[in-house]
Amino acid sequence: MSGAVQLKVTGPLAFVTLSHPGKFNAMSRVMWRQLRAAFEGIQQRSDLLCVLIQGDGGHFCAGGDISEYASFRFEEASLHDFHENEVWGGLQAMLDCDAPIVARIDGNCMGAGLEIASCCDIRIAADSARFSAPIARLGFPMAPREAALVMRAVGELTAREMLLTAAVLDAQEMKQRGFLNQLVPADALCAAALARVDRIKPLGPRAARLNKQALRAIAQIPRAQAAIDLIANAYAYAASAEHREGVTAFIEKREPQFAR
Amino acid sequence: MSGAVQLKVTGPLAFVTLSHPGKFNAMSRVMWRQLRAAFEGIQQRSDLLCVLIQGDGGHFCAGGDISEYASFRFEEASLHDFHENEVWGGLQAMLDCDAPIVARIDGNCMGAGLEIASCCDIRIAADSARFSAPIARLGFPMAPREAALVMRAVGELTAREMLLTAAVLDAQEMKQRGFLNQLVPADALCAAALARVDRIKPLGPRAARLNKQALRAIAQIPRAQAAIDLIANAYAYAASAEHREGVTAFIEKREPQFAR
Amino acid sequence: MSGAVQLKVTGPLAFVTLSHPGKFNAMSRVMWRQLRAAFEGIQQRSDLLCVLIQGDGGHFCAGGDISEYASFRFEEASLHDFHENEVWGGLQAMLDCDAPIVARIDGNCMGAGLEIASCCDIRIAADSARFSAPIARLGFPMAPREAALVMRAVGELTAREMLLTAAVLDAQEMKQRGFLNQLVPADALCAAALARVDRIKPLGPRAARLNKQALRAIAQIPRAQAAIDLIANAYAYAASAEHREGVTAFIEKREPQFAR
Repeated sequence: MSGAVQLKVTGPLAFVTLSHPGKFNAMSRVMWRQLRAAFEGIQQRSDLLCVLIQGDGGHFCAGGDISEYASFRFEEASLHDFHENEVWGGLQAMLDCDAPIVARIDGNCMGAGLEIASCCDIRIAADSARFSAPIARLGFPMAPREAALVMRAVGELTAREMLLTAAVLDAQEMKQRGFLNQLVPADALCAAALARVDRIKPLGPRAARLNKQALRAIAQIPRAQAAIDLIANAYAYAASAEHREGVTAFIEKREPQFAR
Repeated sequence: MSGAVQLKVTGPLAFVTLSHPGKFNAMSRVMWRQLRAAFEGIQQRSDLLCVLIQGDGGHFCAGGDISEYASFRFEEASLHDFHENEVWGGLQAMLDCDAPIVARIDGNCMGAGLEIASCCDIRIAADSARFSAPIARLGFPMAPREAALVMRAVGELTAREMLLTAAVLDAQEMKQRGFLNQLVPADALCAAALARVDRIKPLGPRAARLNKQALRAIAQIPRAQAAIDLIANAYAYAASAEHREGVTAFIEKREPQFAR
Repeated sequence: MSGAVQLKVTGPLAFVTLSHPGKFNAMSRVMWRQLRAAFEGIQQRSDLLCVLIQGDGGHFCAGGDISEYASFRFEEASLHDFHENEVWGGLQAMLDCDAPIVARIDGNCMGAGLEIASCCDIRIAADSARFSAPIARLGFPMAPREAALVMRAVGELTAREMLLTAAVLDAQEMKQRGFLNQLVPADALCAAALARVDRIKPLGPRAARLNKQALRAIAQIPRAQAAIDLIANAYAYAASAEHREGVTAFIEKREPQFAR
């Protein structure tokens, strides 16, 4: 089992569910490809008015599936392919989606989960949700376009805090910092997310698509030139000792020993 | 009566009042032209140290004057002219004003009101004020430059929430989200706004103008190229069924029926 | 005595201390040059994992050393040289630093202090700290690149409020507005800053440097073209009556009389 991204359509609504039992829905490579396929499918259907994205079993998504990392992360070409094609392929498909996307966030929203949430229009979270991007523990940086996306959504202060100090922030703090639209008790999360979907349904669907197209062009996330310029050398760290030690130590359940 | 924007100068202070009795100061076409004239006049007087903009009768401004919409919104050329010349003419004159602008906001601050408030340097609101841009109910999107302006002022999270879910946010939420400098009880609003003007008066007036010119250039709101690039096709929805149904239903005081 | 910026290295940590006794650590010209030298030195040592910057004696930094101003501010060439070479030289060296920078902020954080804090990755403040940039009282504007830097860090709402109304904001307000990562009681500030440094130490140091390089490129603060374009004429106010009156009045401890 390497997890799955499930798409279910009910009338004018699409439900996308991240599911990776036992791993807090950590994104495997196949899940990134399924995420892309799900949103490319949604985008081709003009009858869909709203997308709700959620995680299975009390968590949104705890990051990437680290058990796969040793098989591709330590070689520059395969690492580049993973981030620029698989991960960004999924995120870009979300950013390109013209239907409003509501994120229902509970439990862990970390790394890949934070990136996926950053592609959503509306973010509603359980007050017990937790947010972070602690990859500095694993000895590697966030890919440039992913960093540009997250920095825009969480703000520069929070992006620096998460990436440089591996900080874990609670839902109250993320609401106060402007990442979340609404906080509710965990047992009211499902109802609150559906209530938001119900608010969107009667509104003009073409107006929504035109608004999303304009906001996307103005925000210019997918095409931030500075981020794209960085990509040429962004994965040269693939074979570095730090990267290898960080990922290996995690897999071996021990503290990493980074050389200074 | 189609409302008026009144300019009154008292010593070094300019007072601009949005007034449209019975319509919560909704902006008519003539009011947009008067708004532009008022701020162009202010800009030509280097003796003015500060501008206070406010609404009449307990509200800031509840949006556009929808009773006029049927006469020009359903034809692309006249819709383009309305947004790019009349509306943007008023907003651009505010953005081009070198004197500091303080907004005194009570009651409804919606649509056009939100756009006007977004052009101000300082925003002081009654704790009972309400904010929104619910035009998706009317089946049309926000014009690109107006969306860029509002997104910059309210933040991307709030812009998406207002435009895609027709959310109405209260003053406490808008303070927390970084749109308002100060919240006061409604009966203290006038005094708080005047106190802010009094803080500005003794400061160096040329320093203020140089600061505003620099902040305007850095923020680059009026010239955001992505927004301008969108304008060519931004009004092609003029004759669409959704637009017509949304506006017509509002005028006929019934719920709109949008085709999917 | 014209103050000093002290650099002390302890193992993998660098401590930078702003010190100007009796002047709340106001930055003199020699201090700006020392700030640059300190951070250029830090940047050349790949063994340093984190920088902590702080002020001496219960204050971070209260601004520039106004007692020096009469000697160079009233002539355009020397004013240009001060801002673009001395001040920006120090700030640019901080922005170019690849090691994470934690700011420990207590007491006054104003003008130059606010600019220095804006170059840091993490900002931890005493709940009694105060923030402002009240140079409009002195009859001069913030230099363009400094304004771009501060606007990005404090947000446009707060930058306008500080520059146009000489507002002083308390630490709670600055936390709420997204400038501060963490607030603590003054007597817990030192421990909180060191705890943050301890969080950073075990993380991957090359990951941190790559993250900082990417975030810097994405944020594009040092190279914001609009700000650079303004520089050509940004200091033409040097000999103006307003500038001279503002600075002179401050030095003479009287209220300035600005002509309208």
